[in-house]
Amino acid sequence: MALDSLFDPNGIAVVGASATEGKIGYEAMRNAVEYDGPVYPVNPSSSGTVFDREFVPSVTEIDGDVDLVLSCVPGPVVPEVIEECGEAGIGAAVIFSGGFAEAGEDGERLQNRLVEAAAESDVHLLGPNTSGFLRPGSNLRATFATGTEDVPAGNVAIIAQSGGIAFATAFRAENDGRGVSAMVGLGNAANVGFREAVEHFDGDEETDAIALHVEGTDDARGLLETCRSASTPVVTYNVGEQDVGDFAESHTGSLTGDHKLYEAGFAQYGVPTVRSVGELVDAGIALADCPRPSGPNVGVVTAQAGPGIAITDRLKAAGATLPSLSEETQAVVEDVLPGITFSENPVDTGRPMPEFGEVVEAVARDENVDIVLVYELFEAGLGFPTDTLEGLPEATGKPIVFATGGSRRALEPELETMNACGIPTYTTPERGADAVAALVRYAKRNSRPAASASEVSDDE
Amino acid sequence: MALDSLFDPNGIAVVGASATEGKIGYEAMRNAVEYDGPVYPVNPSSSGTVFDREFVPSVTEIDGDVDLVLSCVPGPVVPEVIEECGEAGIGAAVIFSGGFAEAGEDGERLQNRLVEAAAESDVHLLGPNTSGFLRPGSNLRATFATGTEDVPAGNVAIIAQSGGIAFATAFRAENDGRGVSAMVGLGNAANVGFREAVEHFDGDEETDAIALHVEGTDDARGLLETCRSASTPVVTYNVGEQDVGDFAESHTGSLTGDHKLYEAGFAQYGVPTVRSVGELVDAGIALADCPRPSGPNVGVVTAQAGPGIAITDRLKAAGATLPSLSEETQAVVEDVLPGITFSENPVDTGRPMPEFGEVVEAVARDENVDIVLVYELFEAGLGFPTDTLEGLPEATGKPIVFATGGSRRALEPELETMNACGIPTYTTPERGADAVAALVRYAKRNSRPAASASEVSDDE
Repeated sequence: MALDSLFDPNGIAVVGASATEGKIGYEAMRNAVEYDGPVYPVNPSSSGTVFDREFVPSVTEIDGDVDLVLSCVPGPVVPEVIEECGEAGIGAAVIFSGGFAEAGEDGERLQNRLVEAAAESDVHLLGPNTSGFLRPGSNLRATFATGTEDVPAGNVAIIAQSGGIAFATAFRAENDGRGVSAMVGLGNAANVGFREAVEHFDGDEETDAIALHVEGTDDARGLLETCRSASTPVVTYNVGEQDVGDFAESHTGSLTGDHKLYEAGFAQYGVPTVRSVGELVDAGIALADCPRPSGPNVGVVTAQAGPGIAITDRLKAAGATLPSLSEETQAVVEDVLPGITFSENPVDTGRPMPEFGEVVEAVARDENVDIVLVYELFEAGLGFPTDTLEGLPEATGKPIVFATGGSRRALEPELETMNACGIPTYTTPERGADAVAALVRYAKRNSRPAASASEVSDDE
Repeated sequence: MALDSLFDPNGIAVVGASATEGKIGYEAMRNAVEYDGPVYPVNPSSSGTVFDREFVPSVTEIDGDVDLVLSCVPGPVVPEVIEECGEAGIGAAVIFSGGFAEAGEDGERLQNRLVEAAAESDVHLLGPNTSGFLRPGSNLRATFATGTEDVPAGNVAIIAQSGGIAFATAFRAENDGRGVSAMVGLGNAANVGFREAVEHFDGDEETDAIALHVEGTDDARGLLETCRSASTPVVTYNVGEQDVGDFAESHTGSLTGDHKLYEAGFAQYGVPTVRSVGELVDAGIALADCPRPSGPNVGVVTAQAGPGIAITDRLKAAGATLPSLSEETQAVVEDVLPGITFSENPVDTGRPMPEFGEVVEAVARDENVDIVLVYELFEAGLGFPTDTLEGLPEATGKPIVFATGGSRRALEPELETMNACGIPTYTTPERGADAVAALVRYAKRNSRPAASASEVSDDE
């Protein structure tokens, strides 16, 4: 694909590489050498080696394949570096330095020169003013930031306008025991923007969902169309509900756009939107791990009423439908749970019990239900109904989302097992509800309508 | 205080104690015996011992001090147990069993009998239909739930209408490395309700903030007044924005009230409201750990622009004011950071740097600022400016809240140190902003008005 030289390169050159710890050219080298391929430090003023690699004076003098340059040199020098990339047949470059469109008129002129150089030299640019990207699956860490080796490989691609948000999102995934297929900070997006990046990761084998952070774009319609036409599910975090225009413009040179326009457009196209880094990760994982929902009808099964009520409240606020369960399902539920507290949807078993998995399975197999949300506090004597739930998403073709609460020590091994079954897990009721809300919004792109709701309040 | 016999008892009796694993009377004993005081198993049909304690046939025959009974017997027997408590001079009882007001007319009659028995016998009741409470500081776990020994002692008291939400909230605190001073599930609140519990923990030495979960109450005004008159900060999670009436009534016998009335009333009285278990914990910790804010003016210092923009967006949506910084502060900032990207409020340093703590200190000492929110991604070479921030909340009398991102391995020791300085920490930008929003809402009860805002968007 067009951006393979950027995101899946054969060979990397670090331009402005340095042997002085703390310098960007050193930190970028330290990350780059972990990559599963050749890495060349380039610096005309340095000799000897850094990380056991010999300095090369120019990218045009590298003896070997290089697809990608990491540019650690100051802004004014960058257009020249890009021209040399063109001469050397290098197809992509990451530009860490700032001082471009985010920094007034002089910077804008410099960025224009850079864009021209890239076009003439046929080089794909990430940035300028970016902290780079991660591809943990190939140990490719095209960044000067530290600590990124802790972010494991996963199946969600994070594409963020802000490098800071990109890292915040990737670390939030790591904190939750998850990883990313890619993490990209677009920075000023002089050349590779949302459209190019989304199209690339739509075709990426490791990526099952794409999570976007948008501060602003001058091509809102283009972004909407790109998200709509991607076959990989996309979820977006659009910052800028309030007026933060000046601060945002000083950041990446983009104005935050019309927030309401974004949100309405995304909703119409079945692209879920979220309100925080945490929700972005949680929704991305649900979209990546689950079968595609064929409708917005949610069956809720809870072992505790209070969390079930909180979930119902939040799902309804998000526009989800809680359909009536079929007579067949109700018969199964009543058989397992004679005289339970609330035998409609949500199904409330009152407490964890050995038959809990059976109830979940009956609801998952209900023809009125498109998505299942389960809540159960951890109970040591019982554990979770993993045996019953294993294979259920595949067998039913429906998303099954599991929310729970328990001590970290108790939950971690259990949730790892559950995740391995293709059932995403969340450690509060509301996080589970929000993840399901993203699935409901995504389902709008499919044809199946909402079933007649059980309307919890009007049922009796 | 009135409820000391319930929450700080000398001696406990477990009525309906059992030697059969899995039974509520066994699980309650298992938890109770960890308590720092005498524990007696009571069961007329059992002999011998359980957990090395000899069975006693009745509470009236216990040879020793007992303040609290944990009642594990079926509903219809409970009024009689309470009468026996009265005879034995036992002042409090936790009623685990259901089948009361939440279960139709027969249950309501039974609950009325129970309330009468409690009044006549002068016994404070928690429940019925509750999973009990925790007081980790005295190893008192008055519950049949498992895994609660992992919840450490802390300084926030959780008082929840739902036992399930109470545990979900306590475990959410534990997952984040924090604890609780108390965790209480009110259940049907036949006798001890929000008012009694809030008043008790308002006077509790271990409690620095009170976090409520409210599904509904027939005394909304009373609850508002109680929260208003408490000298300990209170934050509430009011479920029931959407119509979930039937389900809620089947749960604890209470209807969810008029959600908008609650929210408006709480806002007016300077009682912050939140929308999830996670926010309840995060806000509770901010209110508990920080000095009381004297106004709603927030100074934001960020080392990365993208998270700073997300924070500003969210703070403005929550009604916070971002005041202009004093000339003195601006001079300090410009001295440390000549030509930085954004020298107004928020202050954006562009990246972590050795002088970051100095900038935070200057903003914290600014007379226009009541609350400081800091965001900084973790950078291994620099660490966090703990040395500079230590003592700053005390010295300035202002809340300082620290939000960050990084791998779990990198953050955990650093955040523990920061927390020990009285600076609450949050691992996404939005969680930090939400915690500050709670402080801003709490500050409404103080007299200082919002300063003239710097109005990020209209400044130039």
